Order: sequence, then structure tokens, then C-alpha cells
Amino acid sequence: MTAGPDRAVAERLDAEDPIGWLRDRFVLDDPGLLYLDGNSLGRLPAATVTAMAVAVQQTWGHQLVRIWQEWIDVGQRVGDRLGQALLGAAPGQVAIADSTSVNLYKLAAAALDARRDRRVVLTSADNFPTDRYVLEGLAAARGLELRLLEPPGPDPIDAATVAPHLGQDVALVSLSHVSYLSGAIADAPAVTAAAHGAGALVLWDLCHSVGAVPVELDAWEVDLAVGCTYKYLNAGPGAPSFLYVRRALQERLRQPIWGWWGQRDQFAMGQAYDPEPGIARFLVGTPPVLAVVPVGVGVDVLAEAGLPRLRAKSVALTGLTVDLWESWLRPHGFALASPREPSRRGGHVALGHSRAYGVSRALLAAGVVPDFRPPDLVRLAPAPAYTRFVDVWDAMDRLRRLLEGGRHLLFDEAPGRVT
Amino acid sequence: MTAGPDRAVAERLDAEDPIGWLRDRFVLDDPGLLYLDGNSLGRLPAATVTAMAVAVQQTWGHQLVRIWQEWIDVGQRVGDRLGQALLGAAPGQVAIADSTSVNLYKLAAAALDARRDRRVVLTSADNFPTDRYVLEGLAAARGLELRLLEPPGPDPIDAATVAPHLGQDVALVSLSHVSYLSGAIADAPAVTAAAHGAGALVLWDLCHSVGAVPVELDAWEVDLAVGCTYKYLNAGPGAPSFLYVRRALQERLRQPIWGWWGQRDQFAMGQAYDPEPGIARFLVGTPPVLAVVPVGVGVDVLAEAGLPRLRAKSVALTGLTVDLWESWLRPHGFALASPREPSRRGGHVALGHSRAYGVSRALLAAGVVPDFRPPDLVRLAPAPAYTRFVDVWDAMDRLRRLLEGGRHLLFDEAPGRVT
Repeated sequence: MTAGPDRAVAERLDAEDPIGWLRDRFVLDDPGLLYLDGNSLGRLPAATVTAMAVAVQQTWGHQLVRIWQEWIDVGQRVGDRLGQALLGAAPGQVAIADSTSVNLYKLAAAALDARRDRRVVLTSADNFPTDRYVLEGLAAARGLELRLLEPPGPDPIDAATVAPHLGQDVALVSLSHVSYLSGAIADAPAVTAAAHGAGALVLWDLCHSVGAVPVELDAWEVDLAVGCTYKYLNAGPGAPSFLYVRRALQERLRQPIWGWWGQRDQFAMGQAYDPEPGIARFLVGTPPVLAVVPVGVGVDVLAEAGLPRLRAKSVALTGLTVDLWESWLRPHGFALASPREPSRRGGHVALGHSRAYGVSRALLAAGVVPDFRPPDLVRLAPAPAYTRFVDVWDAMDRLRRLLEGGRHLLFDEAPGRVT
Repeated sequence: MTAGPDRAVAERLDAEDPIGWLRDRFVLDDPGLLYLDGNSLGRLPAATVTAMAVAVQQTWGHQLVRIWQEWIDVGQRVGDRLGQALLGAAPGQVAIADSTSVNLYKLAAAALDARRDRRVVLTSADNFPTDRYVLEGLAAARGLELRLLEPPGPDPIDAATVAPHLGQDVALVSLSHVSYLSGAIADAPAVTAAAHGAGALVLWDLCHSVGAVPVELDAWEVDLAVGCTYKYLNAGPGAPSFLYVRRALQERLRQPIWGWWGQRDQFAMGQAYDPEPGIARFLVGTPPVLAVVPVGVGVDVLAEAGLPRLRAKSVALTGLTVDLWESWLRPHGFALASPREPSRRGGHVALGHSRAYGVSRALLAAGVVPDFRPPDLVRLAPAPAYTRFVDVWDAMDRLRRLLEGGRHLLFDEAPGRVT
């Protein structure tokens, strides 16, 4: 075992951190807690406390239905801010609505209906479960083949991974941009171009990307995307999702859930469904107004620092994690399950261990919040908005110590619901 | 024009109101406002202010992901409370999730898939727009016929209305229990029995029923139901919806959006979709935790008074509205567009007028919040939880005075987005 970087190294990185002040935008009333689960549930921005109180007491309680006109397009307005700040998407292409799973369903169905002459849906065998299940259901209902490509281990999916599976029969390629397991960043522009070359449409899941890594949907000529807002966007548990549909495609696609929020001139309440021409045609029901408020705050908080600085700090934080893994954890049987090359690694580091579940529980007991993903991964996500370098150092130090003491062996090994 | 009931009558009714104290459970910081739009957006319960602050700051901000285990089934737990307090539904059959439109889609699709040998979807031509659009989309995708029955004017839909349209070809009957236009209460048990007699499944939209009129889903042997929580349940703008699936049907139905929240043992993240046996199989994505909090409070607030007393007061409030209409408004060309018989009338009174839009806007300017529904209806909903009899009297008095002064003629007649 090598010594690894000294804590003074982490302290110096914090002192030099150009966005260290961003941490003060968050509620941190648990000074001893080392929270490395920002890719599961992000922390609470202080501004959200005020914004929610205002939304509940003023907007709802006082204005009541009279302010409804201002809420009607809240999903599109916050979507536009998100698109411009973090997705490289010009206005009119992003909306906040529904859950990620429902948005996946709507957009994948719309794509399959636009490629009715093709019978294959392509995804990866290790895509996030809800992505696989939603696509499986759509394929089953339409009698299509769900083709699963084998992921290239901890390496990112690129054009070469996808190419052998592309052909004139592929209607839709649906992948996660950042793997929820390895954190590897797929080569989205190259995969998108390869899919387009075969005549397929492309749907990216950005759940583990948005707010963590550079995303340029317009420049990459992405067709469709969805993502969640409760991870790096810090919009709260179960916050509504976002969807992106490239402007040029909007009028050519129709999603299957014909709700009144997609209807042209909806309050005329006309007899037949006639969808809006723009992004609103991908909406369904009444927008979850109160739940959209924290999404707007979450976007604004990250926009204040800007994605380039967030990403630079994230790379440094995960880099320190990898360095400490190598020095301290590798000798204890931990494998690096994330790409070593920083440019290929998203916001979290996955470490494989045969007793990963017990390690996760022992870490929780030691005041470090990681997460566990079956069968054998511990994920550590040092979200750059509020995580210090010393937090990473201290968390890894606690992990090293509990391994040395064998405390992880005290915890039940049956995989449970540690999310 | 007759004199109509004196204001002293309303004052006496308030003095004798056995649930007058319930009004104090709400935030009422606008003493001059006469709010008669509780069937569009209910008022803010005072307990919701605290509950949301606790949810945001303690549950999310402080506990973070460590409390996730408690949230996992929040939609079912609040659904059970709602089912028992207001829907006549035993536990395990109701869940809070998604929007009403998405829930309509899921349940209607599940029903149609269970009746694949039949090709008709039956609804009413005046059903709420999103219901018609969702059913239209499902029928179009499956090549089915959407059959529209003509509603019996302001009279409630009953078995006789539906019977001529039922046959061996009808897969699903989907209707609103209380009409959003007339407020008429359909004879749900009789229509359900008639549909069952023809072998069809039945899906009731309870948006304008829940919290306002008696609902006994189990006793009526209803198959499926959905409803919204931001009207009489007072759960806030765009609050999530609820769905009901009769227990005996749950394992025989499968909804089309195969998200991970419907997956058996979801955190095992298994390869193939294998839905939960119970109500959870009708869930899709991560529950909107923060948005479910006000639903629970809304249920508790109404449960404290109990539906029998709420309904009795509601009947008395709409009765007073009808009496005042007859004395004061009928001579001004207003028609009663709701049933006169109290047992057939839901929580609101609809009044038809050729200048209904102008009347609505003039009322707003006069401190009365009604709503307008095209082409010619003013709806007045004196929600019994927080509306006093004198509020109804004063609102009708203001309406009478503005009609006498012709002030409604000053407002633009182009139907706009007065929701």
C-alpha cells in the first residue's frame, strides 16, 4: 500500500477551488456527514426553501387560480432555462413534465411510430432498469425485437460498440449517456451520427449527465432525450423529469398519450385532439407546478457556476477518488469499475468489491453516504456543487479504516434497498 | 324578480354549521375575496405550509437519501388513506402517481388489452377534454371505434343513457362521475352494473367527485378509477393524481408503461420486466415525494370533518346558490345548467348565459372568483370545507348588482383562458 495523497493536498485543492463558494448555496446542517450520493438524490439548495415557501403561500395560497395563466407554460419556461444552461439546447425544445420513465415511453413510442417499417429497438444490456423495461414493453406491444448490446465493460459505448448492431431494421437507438453503473460517458455525437447513418432515431437518457458533464444536444444533432432533475440538478425527491425533442422533428412526431396539455388552444376544449405544433405536443397533463419550482432553482444554482467549472472540479474530485482508491483500497480487493481516463468518466466513481453491500452499510454507519448497486458496486459521487476535496479524502480515509478494522464484515450481506 | 333569501338566512346557516370550524384549517389571508373556484384549484390548508417546510428542510435537506426507504411506497400509503376516507376503497387498491391524464391512459390501455376481442370504447361527447383525447388516442392506435354518447342535457348519465350503446362489442366504458360542465352526478353503480352486464370494463373519472360527493368504489364494484387532487382535495396546483384498480382485477391487468416502480423487487434491477402483483404494478416512475405531501394533508383535513357532513353542507350551499339564481339571476337571462334535484347535483352550480365570459371577468373584477367554461357557462363551486353561506350570498349579490349595472358588458367577449 502506498501512502496516497496527503490531506494537505485536498486542503490546498479546496483553497484554490474557483467555485468553492457554491457550497454555501446549499443547506448543510449536518457538518459531520460526508455525502457522496449526489447522483441519487442531490442536496437542498437554500434558495429552494424560500422559493417553495413563496410558491406554496403566495402563488397558491394567496393568488389561487387567478395566477394560473402564469403557470400554464411553467414546464416550458424552466425547460428553456435548463436547455440553455446545461443541455446545449436552443429554446423551444425542452420541457419539464412527468417522470423520466413516462417521458422515455412517450418519446420512444413517438420514434417507433415514425419508423414503422423497422422492427428493432436497440439498447444496452446494462442500461438503467426503467429504460430497459419501458423499451421491452413498447417492443412487446408492437411485436418488435428488443436488441441488447453488450456493454464494453467499464469502457464507454462508442460508435464501434454500436455499429455491429445497426442496420436497416433498427428503428430506435436508446442509450444512457453516462452509465449509472460505471459512470462511463458514451460518445454521444459519434453514436448519434452512426445511428443516423443507418436511418435510426436516437434517444439519450441524460439522468446521470445533466449538471455533471458537457451535453450539447443541438450540436450533436440528437433527436430525443430525457433526464431526471433530482440528481445533480438538486430538485428534490421525485422531482419531475425533462424531455428534449429536436425542433425539426417536433411536427413529424406524435406521442401516444393524448392529454389536454398537448392540445392546441386547450381551453377551447375542442372535440378532437389536435396537438400543438411545438414542444407542447409532448406534454400530457396539468403541469406539477409546485414540483417544478425546485427544478428552476436547481438550474439557476448550477448556472451561476457554469458547467465548465463544475465539470473541471468534478474531474478533479473523481481523480482524487481514483488516486486514493489506488493507494488505499486496491490492496483491499477493490476494483475500479469506472474509466480511468478523466474525459471518459462522469460524475461518479464505481468501485467493485465482493462485499460491496456490507461495505456500503458500514460506510453509512461511519457517516459516509455512498450507494450500492447490485451485484457488487459501491458508487461514490462527489457532486462538485457542494462536495469539498477534503470530504473525498475524509470519506476514503474512513473507508480505508473500516476495511482495516474489518467492520464491513459485520453487516448483513443480503442485498437490500440501499438506493 | 322575487326578493330571495335574506342575508340573515345565510348568517343563520353559518351559525348552525356543524363544520364551520373547518374553515379555520385553511390559509385565508384575503378576507374580501369570495372564492368559488374550489373545483378548479382548492385552497391552501394551513397544515400544508408546515408539512411542506418539514418535507423540504427535514426529510429532503437533512435526511437526504437515507430516508428513501420511507418514501418508497408513499404513493400507496397516501392512496390507502384517501381510499378509506373518501373513496370507499379498502387498502391496496389506490395509489397517488402521475397526472390524471397519464393514469387515464394507463388504466384505459390495460382495460382495452384485457378485452382484445372487442372494438368499441364508449364515452360521452361532453366528457372532460383530456378524457376524450386520451381515449381517442388509444382507439386510434388500436384501430378501435370511439363511441360518443350524447349527454342527457343537465341530467345525470344513468343506466338508460348508456344501455342503447352497450353491446358485445364494447370493451370499455369510461365516463366522468360528476360532469365538469353541469355538475350532474352519474348513477355510477347502475352504469357500472349495466356495463358489466354487457361484459365491458368500467373506468370512472372522479376529478369532480372526490371530496365533494359520496363515492363507494368497492360497493359499486367499480373496475377502475382515476381522479385529481388539486380540486376539492386541496393538494395544490398540478398535484399528482390517484388511480384505483379493483383488487380482483389487479393481476389480470397490465398497464403499458413498464417503468421500474412497477417492477417486482425493483432494486434487484433484474433483466426482464416482471410486474408487482398488487397496485404497485400500475406505478411507473419514481414517486413525486414532495408533491404527495400536500395530498396527504388534504385527505386528513377533509377526513376530520367526514364526507357525510361535507356533502350535507355542499348540498345546502349549492341549494342556496340555486335559490338565489331563481330569485335574482333568472330574470337576467341566466339558465340553470345543473340538476335542480340536490341528490343529482355535485359540488358546483353551472349557470348558462349568452355573455358568460364577460360575466366571469366582471365577477373577478368584483372580487368573486368563478370560472368560465366554453361556450356559455359560469361555474360556481362553494367548496364546503372553507366556504360560508354568507360567501355565497355575497357573491350572488355582487353578481346581481353587476348585472343590474351592466358591468359585464364592459368586458371582452372573446373566450380566453379563464380557467
